[in-house]
Parts: sequence; structure tokens; C-alpha cells
Amino acid sequence: MKNDTKNAPIGVFDSGIGGLTVAKELIKTLPGEDIIYLGDTARVPYGTKSGRTVIAYSRSNTEFLISKGIKLLVVACNTASSVSIPSLKAEFDIPVLGVIEPGAKKAVEVTHKNKIGVIGTPSTINSGAYTKAIENLNPDIEVISKPCPLFVPLADEGWVEGEIVERVAEEYLNPIKNSGIDVLVLGCTHYPLLKNTIQKIVGEEITLVDSAQETASQIKQILVNKDLLNDSKTSSERNFYLTDVSDTFISVAGRFLGEKIDKIEMVDIVGTTAQPSL
Amino acid sequence: MKNDTKNAPIGVFDSGIGGLTVAKELIKTLPGEDIIYLGDTARVPYGTKSGRTVIAYSRSNTEFLISKGIKLLVVACNTASSVSIPSLKAEFDIPVLGVIEPGAKKAVEVTHKNKIGVIGTPSTINSGAYTKAIENLNPDIEVISKPCPLFVPLADEGWVEGEIVERVAEEYLNPIKNSGIDVLVLGCTHYPLLKNTIQKIVGEEITLVDSAQETASQIKQILVNKDLLNDSKTSSERNFYLTDVSDTFISVAGRFLGEKIDKIEMVDIVGTTAQPSL
Repeated sequence: MKNDTKNAPIGVFDSGIGGLTVAKELIKTLPGEDIIYLGDTARVPYGTKSGRTVIAYSRSNTEFLISKGIKLLVVACNTASSVSIPSLKAEFDIPVLGVIEPGAKKAVEVTHKNKIGVIGTPSTINSGAYTKAIENLNPDIEVISKPCPLFVPLADEGWVEGEIVERVAEEYLNPIKNSGIDVLVLGCTHYPLLKNTIQKIVGEEITLVDSAQETASQIKQILVNKDLLNDSKTSSERNFYLTDVSDTFISVAGRFLGEKIDKIEMVDIVGTTAQPSL
Repeated sequence: MKNDTKNAPIGVFDSGIGGLTVAKELIKTLPGEDIIYLGDTARVPYGTKSGRTVIAYSRSNTEFLISKGIKLLVVACNTASSVSIPSLKAEFDIPVLGVIEPGAKKAVEVTHKNKIGVIGTPSTINSGAYTKAIENLNPDIEVISKPCPLFVPLADEGWVEGEIVERVAEEYLNPIKNSGIDVLVLGCTHYPLLKNTIQKIVGEEITLVDSAQETASQIKQILVNKDLLNDSKTSSERNFYLTDVSDTFISVAGRFLGEKIDKIEMVDIVGTTAQPSL
């Protein structure tokens, strides 16, 4: 029974394809684990929607992944992590990890000035989730946060370097850069794609914390602690599901994962309106 | 009975708040008509989703508006217009008008060079709906189209003038500008907000066609022809429904409509996942 659980896959969901940056780090950190990824592309983005709606979507995503027999759930979406983790933990009987806590923990370890910057989608920033997580760890730390809504469409468009993205980054980051922070948390799964540009604009003296990397390390720790590491093999299976499949998603997905995706399956968990008539 | 129908409201739906630019033109052109607006903000945007999914969403939006007793349906979303009009016309027993046909008709009237440019979301452009509509009217006209995915988030962010949006507009529009067109169709309800910038980049010699304005004129014509004009009063009632209400939508909505919105009601037609547990 224990072996069955050890061999079970890790479930990862995101509002879309951004969470593939978390899947990428998971694959690097835990090459022997099977992964099932669900991108809720029919309802993307979550970042501008209400907490109530995001929680409802997170629950249906989790139900789908649980039906696939996962041993651990990663909420690889900052927006969903910031509002839905408590209700998912209460409702489902497997370990649940979001991306906020690992990012916050790393930032607290790294800061010397006790002044941390956080960037993310409007809904992640408005939720105050990073601020709360950081203050829980160390109430003496000051958190300065800033929503950067154009970073996601820029990453989707593939405009991750060059004049346009640099001008946008300056507009968003100049105020936060000059506020005395020494650490900046990339609080959105899309932002690792803009890492070089963000680093260029804020300067080398500010350390960037990538929540995706920190989440992967923390998952490894959880699996070790619970004796759930899949030690039976060295190669692994990866399955990718989307709730809506369009050319845009498929062409962008490979860039986010950092490797070619052979097969994406479409799954209809949205079920809102039965079958369309065409 | 006829009077009842005359007094009935016009129904307008969009994937989000962009369709408010169409509602704005409707209010200007038909000040005596009641309007019910539904923005499907829980599932916005449609522009990057598959045709199958957009048709399913359009049907549930239409069912909601029909339940409110509308006399005419306006699909104020280019993406939904480009894929779902035939199935909505087949299924529902009221006049249905999209935004593609009116925009295409005006562009064909205005062009002298028989060379028309069309800009829109990736899914509107990939659907080829404007190209087909224009070619149906005059097969000798050449259509040059270009998706501009960053224009929607720029309009939502309120960055409609200045260096950043101009650089983005140059990136998208310079190739189309130099292709010999004399008319450019703004094939997305968000784009009228960027009209000044777009005009500046393409130059005064290219005429912009605003689908929202053309749609309002054509609706007036339909109501006159069918003797459905509400001639019983001069002031009118406007009701705004969203499928998800977040601060972002409310703050941006007024800018799109061009007047203050007193009250927005939330309606749960998405129903995908029953009730959230929080």
C-alpha cells in the first residue's frame, strides 16, 4: 500500500500554462517522480477574478487530479495559492502545497535589510498573502508590494527581452527598486520568464527569489519526510491536461516548460453549458 | 403584444467589460432604449480560447439575457461574434447581431484602394471572420490582418497613451501600415480606447473603422425596419450584470462606458462547480 502511494504521481494545477515553470523545477529537482499537470485554460486568468470564483475553480481542478490518484497536490498558481489553500487542505486528504509559503520563506532567509519586495498579479497582491506569510515568519520585516498586470501578457507574447518589456518593467519596478529592498519575490509563475529583464532593471544588488524553485525544494523535503519519494525508478511519466486547447496555449507551453511537450489532452471539467450546438 | 416587445430591453453580452464600448455607442444612438448588459467576467478572456468553448459560453450568456425578456441580442465581442453567431441564430428566436458584419460593411464602403487592414485578438484574427465578411461583400478587396494581443491588457491597465503603448503599437502596426491599406478596422471592443494612439501610429491617411459605432447604427436600422423602436419614452434603464465582480472590473468599467456605473449585479451563470466551500 505504501509502495502504491510512493509510485503515485504528483498533481500540479495552475490557471493556465504559467504553472509549467513550477513543473519544470519539479522535474529538475525530482526527476524520478511522475507528474500530472492540469492547466485550467478554459477559465484563465485567475489573477483578475474574485476570491470566491478562484476557490470554486481550485476545487474542481483538485477533484480532477485526485481522481487520477495523486499523492500530493501542488497549487502552482499564486492567485489560487493565495486564496484557496485553506479550503483545499480542509476538504482533501492529501498534502497540499502552494507557491506562496516557499517563496516567502526563502525571501525571509535571504534579506539582510529586513525589507522585501513582492511583485505579482493584482489579485495576488491585493490578497496580501505574501505580506501575511512573511510577517508570520518575521514580524520585523517590511514588505513592499506592487501588482504588474502586463507581465503575464508580455510573457505569453514571448516579449521577454528588449525595449518594450524593459520600459514596462521600469514603469512598475522603479518605485519599488528605490524603496530600499534587497530581495524581490517573483510572485507569479509567469515571471521567471522575465527574470533577466527584471534583474537588469532592479540591478544586481537586489536578489530575486523564484517561488517555483523554492516550491520544488520544499516538495522534495515533504516527500522525504513522509517517506513518499518514488525510489523505484529513474525515468518518469508526465501527463499534461488542459481544460481548453487552443493553438496559442500549445505553442507557448513548450517555452514555459523548457522542453517539448509531446502530447496535451483536453479534459472537460468546466461542464458549464453541456455541449455547444456546433 | 407588439407594444410589450417594443418596450423590451436590448440585450448585450461580451466576454468582459470591453463590450461596454458598444453599449456606449448604443446609448448615444438609441437613448430611448433599455439595455441589459452581461459581462462574462468569470470566464474572460474569450480571445485566446477555442471556438468550441467560446460557443458554449455564448449560449449560456444568451440564455440568461433571453430570460430577462430582451427583444434583440447584440454579441458585443468580436471573438464570440466570429464563431458563435450562426449557432445563436439557429437556436434562439430573436434578432441576433454581432460586431463583425457592421465593421466589415463600413470598411468596404470607405476603402478606395480595395485594401483593408483588420486588427483584433488572436482568436478573432485566426477565425478569418472579418476576411470572410469583407470578401462576401466584395471579393476584389484584399484584407491584411494582424493580431495585437497586448492591446487588451494595455487598455485594461489604462495605458492608452504615451511611450509604452506607442512602442507596442509600432511593433504591431508598422508592417500593416506599410502594406498599402487605406482603412483599418478596430476588430476588438477594447481598441476604441486606444484610437488616438493607433491613429497617431498609422497616420491620418488611414481611416479607422470603429465596429462599435457601426454596430449601433445597424441596430437602429433593424429596430426601425422591424417596427421595434421603443418610442414610448425618452429616458431609459440600464442594467449591468457580471458573472464575477472584482475591484478591477468595477474600476475599469466606467472608463469603457464613458459614464459612471451606479450599480453592477453579480449573476452566477457559470455554475461549473456548485458553491465554493468558503
